[in-house]
Amino acid sequence: MTYVRNAWYVAGWEQDLAPEKPFALTILGDRLVIWRSVSGAVHALEDKCVHRFAPLSLGRCEGEHLRCMYHGLLFEAGGKVAEIPGQDLIPARARVRSYPVVVRHSWIWVWMGEVEAADPALIPPAVGFDDPDYILGCGFLDYQAEARLINDNLLDFSHLTYVHAASFGAGPEFAASQPKVTPLERGVRVERWLENNHGSGNRKSEQLIDGWSSYDFLLPGVLLMWSANYPAGTAKRLNYAPPPMEEAIAGLNFTSQAVTPLTDKTSRYFFSWGPHRQFGDDAMRDHMMGIAGMAFAEDKVMIEAQQRVIDTTPAQDVMPTAHDRGVTLFNRLVEKLSDAATIKRREAVG
Amino acid sequence: MTYVRNAWYVAGWEQDLAPEKPFALTILGDRLVIWRSVSGAVHALEDKCVHRFAPLSLGRCEGEHLRCMYHGLLFEAGGKVAEIPGQDLIPARARVRSYPVVVRHSWIWVWMGEVEAADPALIPPAVGFDDPDYILGCGFLDYQAEARLINDNLLDFSHLTYVHAASFGAGPEFAASQPKVTPLERGVRVERWLENNHGSGNRKSEQLIDGWSSYDFLLPGVLLMWSANYPAGTAKRLNYAPPPMEEAIAGLNFTSQAVTPLTDKTSRYFFSWGPHRQFGDDAMRDHMMGIAGMAFAEDKVMIEAQQRVIDTTPAQDVMPTAHDRGVTLFNRLVEKLSDAATIKRREAVG
Amino acid sequence: MTYVRNAWYVAGWEQDLAPEKPFALTILGDRLVIWRSVSGAVHALEDKCVHRFAPLSLGRCEGEHLRCMYHGLLFEAGGKVAEIPGQDLIPARARVRSYPVVVRHSWIWVWMGEVEAADPALIPPAVGFDDPDYILGCGFLDYQAEARLINDNLLDFSHLTYVHAASFGAGPEFAASQPKVTPLERGVRVERWLENNHGSGNRKSEQLIDGWSSYDFLLPGVLLMWSANYPAGTAKRLNYAPPPMEEAIAGLNFTSQAVTPLTDKTSRYFFSWGPHRQFGDDAMRDHMMGIAGMAFAEDKVMIEAQQRVIDTTPAQDVMPTAHDRGVTLFNRLVEKLSDAATIKRREAVG
Repeated sequence: MTYVRNAWYVAGWEQDLAPEKPFALTILGDRLVIWRSVSGAVHALEDKCVHRFAPLSLGRCEGEHLRCMYHGLLFEAGGKVAEIPGQDLIPARARVRSYPVVVRHSWIWVWMGEVEAADPALIPPAVGFDDPDYILGCGFLDYQAEARLINDNLLDFSHLTYVHAASFGAGPEFAASQPKVTPLERGVRVERWLENNHGSGNRKSEQLIDGWSSYDFLLPGVLLMWSANYPAGTAKRLNYAPPPMEEAIAGLNFTSQAVTPLTDKTSRYFFSWGPHRQFGDDAMRDHMMGIAGMAFAEDKVMIEAQQRVIDTTPAQDVMPTAHDRGVTLFNRLVEKLSDAATIKRREAVG
Repeated sequence: MTYVRNAWYVAGWEQDLAPEKPFALTILGDRLVIWRSVSGAVHALEDKCVHRFAPLSLGRCEGEHLRCMYHGLLFEAGGKVAEIPGQDLIPARARVRSYPVVVRHSWIWVWMGEVEAADPALIPPAVGFDDPDYILGCGFLDYQAEARLINDNLLDFSHLTYVHAASFGAGPEFAASQPKVTPLERGVRVERWLENNHGSGNRKSEQLIDGWSSYDFLLPGVLLMWSANYPAGTAKRLNYAPPPMEEAIAGLNFTSQAVTPLTDKTSRYFFSWGPHRQFGDDAMRDHMMGIAGMAFAEDKVMIEAQQRVIDTTPAQDVMPTAHDRGVTLFNRLVEKLSDAATIKRREAVG
Repeated sequence: MTYVRNAWYVAGWEQDLAPEKPFALTILGDRLVIWRSVSGAVHALEDKCVHRFAPLSLGRCEGEHLRCMYHGLLFEAGGKVAEIPGQDLIPARARVRSYPVVVRHSWIWVWMGEVEAADPALIPPAVGFDDPDYILGCGFLDYQAEARLINDNLLDFSHLTYVHAASFGAGPEFAASQPKVTPLERGVRVERWLENNHGSGNRKSEQLIDGWSSYDFLLPGVLLMWSANYPAGTAKRLNYAPPPMEEAIAGLNFTSQAVTPLTDKTSRYFFSWGPHRQFGDDAMRDHMMGIAGMAFAEDKVMIEAQQRVIDTTPAQDVMPTAHDRGVTLFNRLVEKLSDAATIKRREAVG
């Protein structure tokens, strides 16, 4: 698994985490217990009691503490053991790893790398339910596939023409055109004008329009995209530069998506989507979630099948196409930053 | 997996392959997509897009071509990429392996070895639905077991007395007698007279008969057998030589069976069976398929259990019995020819 | 798997073994067929025909013999082949390993080590249905976990306070107190007075009592425990020595439990429990079995989860607590005796 550890990973929807109900989630192969205490604070610890390795996720919340319900060791939110039934001495090694947690934009973000590097400013600017401008639906899907394959999928939208012909409804002209791909410090930006057409999916239009969409795909695997319809001719008029959001005439919407690697061959894919309040309502949101449900299931079928092929055939180099520019840029970034972390760790040791 | 690659493997019943419905089948560990184009031609390609390894079996038939439905690469039946959406250049390496295919005797045969050695004359002379003499039923079974174990089973019919006591109904005298076993260039012939009895299964007889059966078991794992009843005394009169088929007095029938190794521990077992038109009808065929269904399920229980024992216990040499002559001859042939192929490949490289 | 081979392992409840119904059980990774002949004798053989490794557990009982139902080899109860259909010669190597079996205390015990060391005197003194003093219920549970983890669980009852708070109903004072732990030649003895309380579970009492319990945990993994209530003050009066069983005033009961390692990661856990005839009846037994069913399911959830953590996280040393004295003593004994057997085998070879 080549992933960037020094990054914030989405562990779940904030609204799904009830107080005092610890839940288990594996991220990057690390087993975590995540829980919300009575006070509302959210914590994440290694899900493995230091005594005999029972999972703390079967434990009991006691105030800000979590008790292992096998032999009763009590853990502070920071990972230190506060109590061992039947003995007074707490050994120095009686602690488990704790992970920085931030709740923001309706997601629970967990930092999987070096604690001292955990900077909340690195959390991608997703749109959550606290944003007054959008009417969102949300969900998640579990994949029997490595996260990288889902990232690759999200970094090359030419698959819309084939995988999503029936759901998003893109035609061959979509796969024939190239978006503008720009490297960012922690990701890639993909922008695209689709001129003089009638839109498709939730952005179908009677009159001819210029369709715009722009997304940032950010470490560790977060897609933030907005799209909208503009009057035909806008693209040319702007010399294909990004349009001002406030001049959209229809279809303005936002989607936040996050790919979280669970183990080396399983992933969880979180998503929200919905119209800007000015261009849609709850019914529009529900309609869009219906399309998304269909489309994301199409991706899942393809990507899980792709994973099975990879797992059961001899290793082989991919043959990138012109559409793979975003994939290649992002994967190079991942490789560079995962190397960097490794090197930094090595220096710390050496 | 020690199997002979230079051989025709049964991939399916011709009648099961609808036009423009690609299907996936793994043979000898190679993932294949097999499809019938609108013209009726049947093709087989490596089921792995050269781009990012999506399975072509999720693809779409377009004329004689097959399109990968992930990012739209279009493949010729011979494996060459004809189109890459979004770019004009087709790189030289843009191709996947193609496999020779022949449709004959109602089976789809795929050649798994060196293309230049693919000689249709090596296809075993099975009896298919195109044969006017026989009234056949057919089916297939999937095994959680390596093909070799099913071959071994088919090469020693003494198991009829034990595994199939309730279905084919062979008694202890069957396992006590030895058939004549003769090596063939690409297989083994097993012939047997069973004198002066009342037959069993579909060949039960009121009067005493001499029962004859003869099968060839041919590479890679194809059993072709005919059996019939003769007047008691025939065997002795013929000095135990094979009888002329046309002097049969009852029970003349033919079965074709083929064992196809999918992966190292899974197999597909194809079979047809039925009476000669002169000695039976549709009802007799159905009766026989009922017996076969019961009997082949008995084999499956035993062979899958045998596989589990082999997989979970220390390796150990078999202890061949007198009945294993056919098994031993055939397995030596497999070893010799799989070695030969290996040597030839080595020479080609060296 | 570090286990002591020279020991009697429980293979099942005697009453579950119908005559002439061979059944398959894997113990310590060895596949066994166990069967009761018409005469009532119970035998155990390696479940792997010497011919082609078909399981003998699919075989047919014939008098004191067992016939492999693949190609008909007939086995004596001692493992020697008595008959090979189709040939007269029986090769010297035509035999499978046989295992000593003793039926005692309602359990079928199989000796997994060196045959010459199989001493029935080493069978732990369990209480079976033949014991006139106790009214027993019984059962078994299959674990997706290694036997060692279940042994560890049974050697440290402090988990009652946490795992079994809702079933056995032990409070925090239980986990806070330490039992007396004494090494035995082939196990560990754990004794405990719990003074001046109202009991719990099946031993709840209106008046204050002193509760006593004592168990031996014996190789290979057999727990034999009796418990009873005594008048408050008894513990102090006896200076905390074991009380005479006949002075119990209530709640006298006995439980026999046996942990059998099947494979390295699966186990079968056998148990019986019930009141002494003087202090209970069938209804009390049923009530106790209800509690046990709930409690043993609680253990299973915890231990299987513990196993999954161990299997999916980096190896790490346990951090023993004061309650782990019994666990440590027993595991050292296992290590010593499994080493001893290894050394002995090495000497026999060298």
